[in-house]
Amino acid sequence: MTDSPRAFVSEIVAAWPHLSENGRMQAFRSLTRDRREDLFLDLTAPEQSQLLLMLPEHERRTYLRVLPPDDSADLIQESPLETKEGLLALLDDKSRAEVLALLAYAEDDAGGLMNPRFARLRPDMTVDEAIAYLRLQGRNMETVYYAYVLGHDQKLLGVVSFRDLFTASGRARIDEVMKSDVVAVKENTDQEEVARLFSAHSLAAIPVIDPGGVMKGIVTIDDIVDVVQEEATEDIQKIGGMQALEGPYLETGFWEMVRKRAGWLAALFLGEMLTATAMSRYEAEISKAVVLAVFIPLIISSGGNSGSQASTLIIRSIALGEVTLRDWWRVARREVFSGVALGSVLAIIGFFRILIWQGVFHSYGDHYLLVALTVAFSLIGVVMFGTLAGSMLPFVLRRAGMDPASASAPFVATMVDVTGLVIYFTVAHLVLGGTLL
Amino acid sequence: MTDSPRAFVSEIVAAWPHLSENGRMQAFRSLTRDRREDLFLDLTAPEQSQLLLMLPEHERRTYLRVLPPDDSADLIQESPLETKEGLLALLDDKSRAEVLALLAYAEDDAGGLMNPRFARLRPDMTVDEAIAYLRLQGRNMETVYYAYVLGHDQKLLGVVSFRDLFTASGRARIDEVMKSDVVAVKENTDQEEVARLFSAHSLAAIPVIDPGGVMKGIVTIDDIVDVVQEEATEDIQKIGGMQALEGPYLETGFWEMVRKRAGWLAALFLGEMLTATAMSRYEAEISKAVVLAVFIPLIISSGGNSGSQASTLIIRSIALGEVTLRDWWRVARREVFSGVALGSVLAIIGFFRILIWQGVFHSYGDHYLLVALTVAFSLIGVVMFGTLAGSMLPFVLRRAGMDPASASAPFVATMVDVTGLVIYFTVAHLVLGGTLL
Repeated sequence: MTDSPRAFVSEIVAAWPHLSENGRMQAFRSLTRDRREDLFLDLTAPEQSQLLLMLPEHERRTYLRVLPPDDSADLIQESPLETKEGLLALLDDKSRAEVLALLAYAEDDAGGLMNPRFARLRPDMTVDEAIAYLRLQGRNMETVYYAYVLGHDQKLLGVVSFRDLFTASGRARIDEVMKSDVVAVKENTDQEEVARLFSAHSLAAIPVIDPGGVMKGIVTIDDIVDVVQEEATEDIQKIGGMQALEGPYLETGFWEMVRKRAGWLAALFLGEMLTATAMSRYEAEISKAVVLAVFIPLIISSGGNSGSQASTLIIRSIALGEVTLRDWWRVARREVFSGVALGSVLAIIGFFRILIWQGVFHSYGDHYLLVALTVAFSLIGVVMFGTLAGSMLPFVLRRAGMDPASASAPFVATMVDVTGLVIYFTVAHLVLGGTLL
Repeated sequence: MTDSPRAFVSEIVAAWPHLSENGRMQAFRSLTRDRREDLFLDLTAPEQSQLLLMLPEHERRTYLRVLPPDDSADLIQESPLETKEGLLALLDDKSRAEVLALLAYAEDDAGGLMNPRFARLRPDMTVDEAIAYLRLQGRNMETVYYAYVLGHDQKLLGVVSFRDLFTASGRARIDEVMKSDVVAVKENTDQEEVARLFSAHSLAAIPVIDPGGVMKGIVTIDDIVDVVQEEATEDIQKIGGMQALEGPYLETGFWEMVRKRAGWLAALFLGEMLTATAMSRYEAEISKAVVLAVFIPLIISSGGNSGSQASTLIIRSIALGEVTLRDWWRVARREVFSGVALGSVLAIIGFFRILIWQGVFHSYGDHYLLVALTVAFSLIGVVMFGTLAGSMLPFVLRRAGMDPASASAPFVATMVDVTGLVIYFTVAHLVLGGTLL
């Protein structure tokens, strides 16, 4: 299938972000009318908007009208403010009303994702009548996997899948074959929750109802794949310690990107300054025993690493709904034990590393055994603290109404660095007091 | 809809990971026959397997037969080795043959995701005949969004959506209304690539064909939502610096989890030991100017933070196909400039922090201005190096055939720590040589 024109459209779509404005126009013009439509449909909403605004007005109208209302709404959402009015004017009256209604919803609610066009049936039709009726309705539906059964008040009574319609007897009544126990969402249900429902119930579409049970539209699963990708990207960027970008890396302006990264980096830097304050307090110890300074990066980074492991693990579990706020105590207990186990592994490696180096290079002076013990005990303490702090921070953020993904690896590392220094020098005092200190 | 029994099933599904074996059994038994089926269908494959194996044999047979072949294959894949044979024996002959064929594919290939049952039509049928024929076929199809048109040799000729069928004239021939330019995948296409195709083309199902063009099955989009979530979870766990877990956090055994975290943590610790080696080389400098030790955590963590920002950003862009190997030079150039800009921001903050503290607490001795300059220049160097190393490492890993997500935040931080120390002490020599050093 690689040499078919459809595959060529896929190639162009893949190359799109890497093309100049001119290149995009040339690629678009090189296609036949039908293929241009395919290309337009396959682009993301911001790409569609940018392409559309390069075209003359009569062509804009043609391509805009190819889109179902939810996709038109996305395109207009992504377009520059001064062009929105003009784009809306290109739609026919019915579509414009639908798009305006959709634009009123928050972008990441079920209402913002839904398509107001869906296949509807009456409960008292027969299956044969329903199939005939759907053949007439077909033109107005984006996707027909299910038909929804509505009462005279437009309230949702049930759903029939096409499979149900095809396998039932032609003379059966729709309310006999429909499933009346429907998984539905409200207009303001968050898109992450909608995605979870799709995944839990293996559905192809979910109806959106208002508080009175009146059906407003459907969310289809093809929109959910994009939602899931977007949410994961946002979480990953936050875990990496930055504000989420709004578009692809190469299409984000240089200064916007620097700004989104500089904010967190500067905040972390201010937090990390506490290490300088802590270190100043330990200057006397360091001048007495410079050997202690040697292990500072090793100790604090081990705390940071174990902390970022724990926090990313818990962030993702919360995002997938595997772990909820109520589980915090179970997680805390588990992570304390994990921390001790992981810290002990590092302590053993670190202890023998010092003994071996001492044997070969005589690096650490007469009290090398006490230094090795200091490092080993500190590692257990620091890793345990890192693991516990890293696993609890996402819960704290969620409890405070913030995004758990903000418990980024760098954030946790910074938090653990200061504590790590305090743990290290406290252990040093206990172990080395009277000898080196 | 919250008090309907369907909603109650959703509650049980959500609570499932938090229930004991006994509690699961009780919840299951508390439902009517139909609801039990709903519950079973909504569980994940490992949960289904665990529940099934708790049931007596005649019930096992009933529930196993509710699943379409691709889901049965997943369930059997997830079951303990000694139970697989027994479960396969519960299937009817046709299903068993299908499941065995599916089990032969790698789990994360298109072949491992596909359902061998799909709606098929002949090119020379009329639309009316096709609709009548589909009504007969219905019982054997998991999902009917599209019907596939096959020639006598079972080669894929085209596809008709139900919408096409419903809107076409009843007398038209199928080969007149079908789309012959089909987006299809091979059996060994990676599931990430399949997910990208779904997202790019807004499809509900994609046909799987063998090298000769013979149609083998379909991958449906509801399976892809799970794939996308799984792949993102794997990436996030790797970015957090650990091996990906295979199941939810609370269901993973304690020692298995410790093992998956200890491996990377120990590897990072061994890498981080280079900092101790580097620090040993600078012991003389530290004893001459203890004030230098004060800023070590601040400097190295800034490098680590900027590095993990850059690496997570690039890892995700590569995973989404926004950035490819060919873009490495564009990214490198961009990240060098970002690094200088971000480093300068931190340098300015750090410089004034030292001047202010000196003014208030007189912390840093006579040469405080030179110390401040050392810190500032080091920050620019370290952040630039961190940003560049963090952004290039995912490319290097991809080039070497490894997963870019292994360029975890902790991995990058460790890499940058050692270099950070070298940069810091080199700058210190240049700026403070003749005064403090």
